[in-house]
Amino acid sequence: MLVTLLTDFGTADYFVAAMKGVILGRDPRIALVDVTHEVPPQDVPAGAFTLLAAYPAFPAGTVHLAVVDPGVGSERRPLVVDAGGHRFVGPDNGLLSYVCEREPQARVYHLTGRALFREPVSATFHGRDVFAPAAAALATGAAPAELGAEVDDYVRLDPLRPVRVEGKLRARILHVDRFGNCVTNIGRQDLPECEAAEEVRMEVNGREVRTLRRFYAEPGAEDGEPFAIWGSAGFLEISVQRDSAAELLGVRRGMPVTVRMD
Amino acid sequence: MLVTLLTDFGTADYFVAAMKGVILGRDPRIALVDVTHEVPPQDVPAGAFTLLAAYPAFPAGTVHLAVVDPGVGSERRPLVVDAGGHRFVGPDNGLLSYVCEREPQARVYHLTGRALFREPVSATFHGRDVFAPAAAALATGAAPAELGAEVDDYVRLDPLRPVRVEGKLRARILHVDRFGNCVTNIGRQDLPECEAAEEVRMEVNGREVRTLRRFYAEPGAEDGEPFAIWGSAGFLEISVQRDSAAELLGVRRGMPVTVRMD
Amino acid sequence: MLVTLLTDFGTADYFVAAMKGVILGRDPRIALVDVTHEVPPQDVPAGAFTLLAAYPAFPAGTVHLAVVDPGVGSERRPLVVDAGGHRFVGPDNGLLSYVCEREPQARVYHLTGRALFREPVSATFHGRDVFAPAAAALATGAAPAELGAEVDDYVRLDPLRPVRVEGKLRARILHVDRFGNCVTNIGRQDLPECEAAEEVRMEVNGREVRTLRRFYAEPGAEDGEPFAIWGSAGFLEISVQRDSAAELLGVRRGMPVTVRMD
Repeated sequence: MLVTLLTDFGTADYFVAAMKGVILGRDPRIALVDVTHEVPPQDVPAGAFTLLAAYPAFPAGTVHLAVVDPGVGSERRPLVVDAGGHRFVGPDNGLLSYVCEREPQARVYHLTGRALFREPVSATFHGRDVFAPAAAALATGAAPAELGAEVDDYVRLDPLRPVRVEGKLRARILHVDRFGNCVTNIGRQDLPECEAAEEVRMEVNGREVRTLRRFYAEPGAEDGEPFAIWGSAGFLEISVQRDSAAELLGVRRGMPVTVRMD
Repeated sequence: MLVTLLTDFGTADYFVAAMKGVILGRDPRIALVDVTHEVPPQDVPAGAFTLLAAYPAFPAGTVHLAVVDPGVGSERRPLVVDAGGHRFVGPDNGLLSYVCEREPQARVYHLTGRALFREPVSATFHGRDVFAPAAAALATGAAPAELGAEVDDYVRLDPLRPVRVEGKLRARILHVDRFGNCVTNIGRQDLPECEAAEEVRMEVNGREVRTLRRFYAEPGAEDGEPFAIWGSAGFLEISVQRDSAAELLGVRRGMPVTVRMD
Repeated sequence: MLVTLLTDFGTADYFVAAMKGVILGRDPRIALVDVTHEVPPQDVPAGAFTLLAAYPAFPAGTVHLAVVDPGVGSERRPLVVDAGGHRFVGPDNGLLSYVCEREPQARVYHLTGRALFREPVSATFHGRDVFAPAAAALATGAAPAELGAEVDDYVRLDPLRPVRVEGKLRARILHVDRFGNCVTNIGRQDLPECEAAEEVRMEVNGREVRTLRRFYAEPGAEDGEPFAIWGSAGFLEISVQRDSAAELLGVRRGMPVTVRMD
């Protein structure tokens, strides 16, 4: 019985603790793991990426509670997702859509099991009153289909996978991490030619990146030049040894990345 | 057996981990939940608010360990509070006084059960040496009265509830949260006229706030005007859609808030 | 079964959660405690200090997972340390060397039990793929010697203990904490003359510090002058009441500290 939590609530307020209190009030044996609470406020794509990168490390059966929810209190639906042996709970605003794109067997449910909710349901904090009780129910054995009807018209973010156009792979920066590494949306399956290569012809923010390295401290990398590297989330990243590639290249999340394939 | 922790220790140092090590050394089955460790350094009223907002989400029997303690090592007393089915441990400097004000049956004890303490008791870190052992003892079944004599002269902060003077409710800003929402000390019972209203005549920092909304994303709120809203901690808050009301209005904790009632 | 985690990963990314997912995937009963994830990026001595200060508060048998690892993917070895009844896992770059210096019976092993690792082992994230599985194995009963051969030539940082030269103790600032307290590497055994004294003749950054206080709020300390105090990690610290000694004195980690003994 394991529940992870990912939000944009920060850790200075009582919000995260309130969700945990509700979950442990339902069953004190549930183990809780924070993914992060530092998603930039209301930044749904940033939350969707971090959730995508985190969940595969957890054992099957884990419940992932994700709340980045600027539409709280409005008509946006609460969702439950059953995908890849994991369960996910969160708002219908795209936050869970990268997971659904990666897991082709994903099934999505409109969470309506109101009997579960914490009463009275506030209009401002569904994390505590709606999502946390649903996560606890799933962790203690409820089946997703018991919590609501299956739906297919959930909100999708821009597709995770890059597209090939005229001999180029058109990709984007999905995330910039704490060390300034720039994570693209290019997976190994998008660039099979590159798997064993030592070079890649990538362009970002008007700058070419050609060297492909295997690890950060690789001999040669001390020249301070940006290089490409297959990162731990399974995507191609742009890095600099002991420095921030994002700062050095002026790269921010969302920027286009091009790889020449011809 | 659940213990929550709230401090101003930050999370960059070893302080919080040391308290948890002591608690788990007493009983490894205790589940630990962080409320926050980002109370501004030595800011007792800020800690008192966050504790007040967090504890009701936890199940009865939870022990709440709270340490914002500029007087550590001096004659200030360590306290145990038994209130609303919860237990609280912390210094006698007002940190627990909002909880005591809200829970009329609260009983307060001067923690003196020295046999419990971690020896030698340092003069600089009672969180680890005094409060953590007491929290573990309470979590594993000790009764508050076993840990010290009951007292009534504990330190109180300014009263939590606003006062009515000449047709006005004189209130204050209790807290500014991560999103810039400004939490007042006005509860629903302080403003029964307002319960079903769509308007409130509030003034803060020379600016009027009149609209009362039900949720942040309510249609109409996209005009960027500040509005009042009943927040998830049970208090009236001042918010702006997708922006920081605190920055927009120049509001800080402690500022006076007035509501006209006539 | 208790595992602590200390890294420089921050808490905004998925890195820490991925390590926890791997550990709980090995055994969901393991309790996890964060020491900190805010070690300054790639700052090995800072991580070594915080680990040293934290581990003694934990019960014997605890496994401490420490990852500040700029050399990940290179030939630097992964280590397991058995010291003082605790186990430690981390890279061979000095991160574990303060613990080894303090615990004279420490035994150090080159972690090579590849069967344990998470496959495929990435070149960029041994925290998840190498160290987390090893920590889980130790927590669930594996003996350090089962995980690799004993070694003696592990990387040491500058010695933890200060040296006496010509009537002076030559020390340094080990750490600056959240409150601006400046922790030196002077332990009680380095300054036995000082144990019961009320004065110390310390110099740091061209400024003398002479008063030795017992606690922060001691009467007299409200004059705003810096003073020395025996801190909770067992080292002599430099503090100012309700202010940052580090800012006031312009002190940073690594700066020399001198105490006159004659």
